[in-house]
Amino acid sequence: MDKLATNEEIEQGLKQLPEWQVRKMDGMQRLIRQFKFNNFKQALNFTNQVGDLAEQNNHHPLIITEWGKVTVEWWSHQAGGITSADLQMAAQTDQLAA
Amino acid sequence: MDKLATNEEIEQGLKQLPEWQVRKMDGMQRLIRQFKFNNFKQALNFTNQVGDLAEQNNHHPLIITEWGKVTVEWWSHQAGGITSADLQMAAQTDQLAA
Repeated sequence: MDKLATNEEIEQGLKQLPEWQVRKMDGMQRLIRQFKFNNFKQALNFTNQVGDLAEQNNHHPLIITEWGKVTVEWWSHQAGGITSADLQMAAQTDQLAA
Repeated sequence: MDKLATNEEIEQGLKQLPEWQVRKMDGMQRLIRQFKFNNFKQALNFTNQVGDLAEQNNHHPLIITEWGKVTVEWWSHQAGGITSADLQMAAQTDQLAA
């Protein structure tokens, strides 16, 4: 099981992830970013790309799909918050959208 | 633009939709149901089925995809809450999961 990232590690990681925010929900910190699209179909396509990334890494985010936007939330439930793996997954999610 | 369903119409509709709840968020009522699955892949497959249904009807829900569960939320933003179309979409979503 991964260890929680320290606050310093998270702050350092966020320098490479300027679009991501840290929010605490249900007592655990999460990395959250919203991606915008022109319609529902494009949003759902991105959801599937993030889903493929998740399956490849056996680490799964929460994904909110709506008309024109997708919100991705990465955290590690077992660790109780954000781990270095979550920071890496956020970076890979950015690459999908690039 | 569809009219909002009356409270009576919503109550009547919910009799056929026992798994759905009405919740008010951002000042608008929504129909919400959570569907459970055995893993992430099955959850994402269901998200795509709901997405196809949405595209066919040109009416789009909010879909939250997580490991082992999908939450679907139907409402009509322009009408400002739940319309008869939303009640129909909820029923069709149930059929996808049946």
